[in-house]
Amino acid sequence: MADRSRRRFLAETAAVLAAAPFVSTRATRARAQASRKLGFALCGLGRLSTDQLAPALAKTKYCRLAGIVTGTPAKAEAWKARYGIPAAHVYSYETMHRMADNPDIDVVYVVTPNGLHGEHAIAAAQAGKHVFCEKPMEISVERCQRMIQACRGAGRLLGIAYRCRFEPHHLECIRLARERVFGRPLIVQAGFGIKVGDDAGWRLRRELAGGGALMDVGIYALQATRYLTGEEPVLVSAVETRTDPAKFAEVDESLVWTTRFPSGVVAYCSTSYNAGGIQNMRVNAERGWFELDPAFFYGGLRGRRSDGQEIRFPRIDMFAAEMDDFARCILEGRPTRVPGEEGLRDVRIMQAIYESARTGRAVSLA
Amino acid sequence: MADRSRRRFLAETAAVLAAAPFVSTRATRARAQASRKLGFALCGLGRLSTDQLAPALAKTKYCRLAGIVTGTPAKAEAWKARYGIPAAHVYSYETMHRMADNPDIDVVYVVTPNGLHGEHAIAAAQAGKHVFCEKPMEISVERCQRMIQACRGAGRLLGIAYRCRFEPHHLECIRLARERVFGRPLIVQAGFGIKVGDDAGWRLRRELAGGGALMDVGIYALQATRYLTGEEPVLVSAVETRTDPAKFAEVDESLVWTTRFPSGVVAYCSTSYNAGGIQNMRVNAERGWFELDPAFFYGGLRGRRSDGQEIRFPRIDMFAAEMDDFARCILEGRPTRVPGEEGLRDVRIMQAIYESARTGRAVSLA
Repeated sequence: MADRSRRRFLAETAAVLAAAPFVSTRATRARAQASRKLGFALCGLGRLSTDQLAPALAKTKYCRLAGIVTGTPAKAEAWKARYGIPAAHVYSYETMHRMADNPDIDVVYVVTPNGLHGEHAIAAAQAGKHVFCEKPMEISVERCQRMIQACRGAGRLLGIAYRCRFEPHHLECIRLARERVFGRPLIVQAGFGIKVGDDAGWRLRRELAGGGALMDVGIYALQATRYLTGEEPVLVSAVETRTDPAKFAEVDESLVWTTRFPSGVVAYCSTSYNAGGIQNMRVNAERGWFELDPAFFYGGLRGRRSDGQEIRFPRIDMFAAEMDDFARCILEGRPTRVPGEEGLRDVRIMQAIYESARTGRAVSLA
Repeated sequence: MADRSRRRFLAETAAVLAAAPFVSTRATRARAQASRKLGFALCGLGRLSTDQLAPALAKTKYCRLAGIVTGTPAKAEAWKARYGIPAAHVYSYETMHRMADNPDIDVVYVVTPNGLHGEHAIAAAQAGKHVFCEKPMEISVERCQRMIQACRGAGRLLGIAYRCRFEPHHLECIRLARERVFGRPLIVQAGFGIKVGDDAGWRLRRELAGGGALMDVGIYALQATRYLTGEEPVLVSAVETRTDPAKFAEVDESLVWTTRFPSGVVAYCSTSYNAGGIQNMRVNAERGWFELDPAFFYGGLRGRRSDGQEIRFPRIDMFAAEMDDFARCILEGRPTRVPGEEGLRDVRIMQAIYESARTGRAVSLA
């Protein structure tokens, strides 16, 4: 990476003020220099791992699928056969601490239900592995803090899988906002709603999911308001609705919320587990606007600007991009733009959104 | 109008529960039967009257420009010359009570600053005229109530100029929502923001305008959430921002708000006097969505549906449509779908939005 590009790249991550210190060991560096590929173990073999992460790993430059953690023996067999994973690299949640003895695994990517992220991330860190973790980071601020502490204590890097932070349409929108191409942003709108089926499993259980639509997809809209403005909200106000209380007995179904940021920009957002087809983000600025719609799918993103220009880039594999970036951060001993602190911020704001919906009061985050 | 069409039309106005009683006098009916055109006096000759209403009156079937009320003698001369208005049909705000003696004027269309609507509407009603009034109806609930009482007391019809209620794209969206073509509506999004210049005059003065962006353009978004759902909000929650406090010292610049309706549908909305280019409305329902963007201009409206169909109708003159409808309501002795009670509801909700923004608490409207 040229020095100038590197400086620009680092400037982009300026929001990451306190990067967790971690050690890029001589062994890791030596291995990396040999193969340039870090070994990833996927922890949790649900749909995301099966349909997205394993195929994405095959497309990465700096990563390779090196191991799995699963509680389902049949899945272990299928993955061993399909990806040629040696038996010694297959773990259960009970045995994953033994990874400490496996130098082929550098990173554990935690893809289990939200409420188990902390347990598995901490186990991985204690086994000496770097941790990449699906969003939402965990279901409480306290658990997020424990994850950060565990990785810091083990000298390992912790990253949260915010794939849009590596996607060209989103990066272009961030540039348009930060460089004030249409003047100062004033009003941001973002929403992500999907219709979940009755097969949503743990996503409808409070203990495992921690919340519903907001924790799962609303977090994309929340993130968007934060990375588009480059600011942290100081006030949130939310209204919740549950039109199918039987299905959504334990988790939120639909929420709309508003936020105010320090510079004065405001945002209005929505999320739903019962209304599909909502997935856009839009910045209304002093002299124009720009938007992505759809904004949050894995592909097919499309953007428009008030000057008539399109925002259009070739499709990339966002999962490959985020894993490659995380691997490079490890290899180069630099912070990630999506550290645990970033995951914690969203969890804190989401808790405030829930509190506001529950109490009928705006919640200050200043 | 065929009986079936008439029944459908009346069903559309079912929300208008308590229509103000009024008298369609024998004289009015006789004149109307002769000419089929009611005489409209425009009260307030600003940009809207000049650029929209006078040209629109020429396109109506049931109305004609019969008089003017203005405080500016030069305007009176120009309008007399341009439209052939006899001197006896030209009034000032001080002399408009004399309209009582002018049988050629049936309706006074009040187009003065918001905070003067009440005074002029009441003067018109007391002169025996029906009253059509620009939105927002007035700047307080109490003033709206006085207007309703004055018209009711005089036996005259009172209508508020909600032009979108007569526009085919909006009527089609209302149909899509009410007939649940995409299932039950769950989340409505609407926003209207314009960038006002330094020449915004009385619109930036609290005493005359009563408020800023919300009262002037946000009201379109608010109305949309109400006519799309066919319900009255029970809870509103708002966040305000002022990025240009010098210009917007007296009135609101930008607001985002959320509302909940009795059936459970929620809405998230925005308005601004500093961010142009926001003007859309969208219904996210159980099995799809539909939207207009742009939604609130005088023309060029364009709609999309989740099934790929466009929502597209020929442009109409919305001002001509709303005036013709009001004239027909008078001629046929039936209620309008935009009575004073409808204007009052919006003013009440807007006051609640301001209160929520001020106090940081959700405001109950139940």
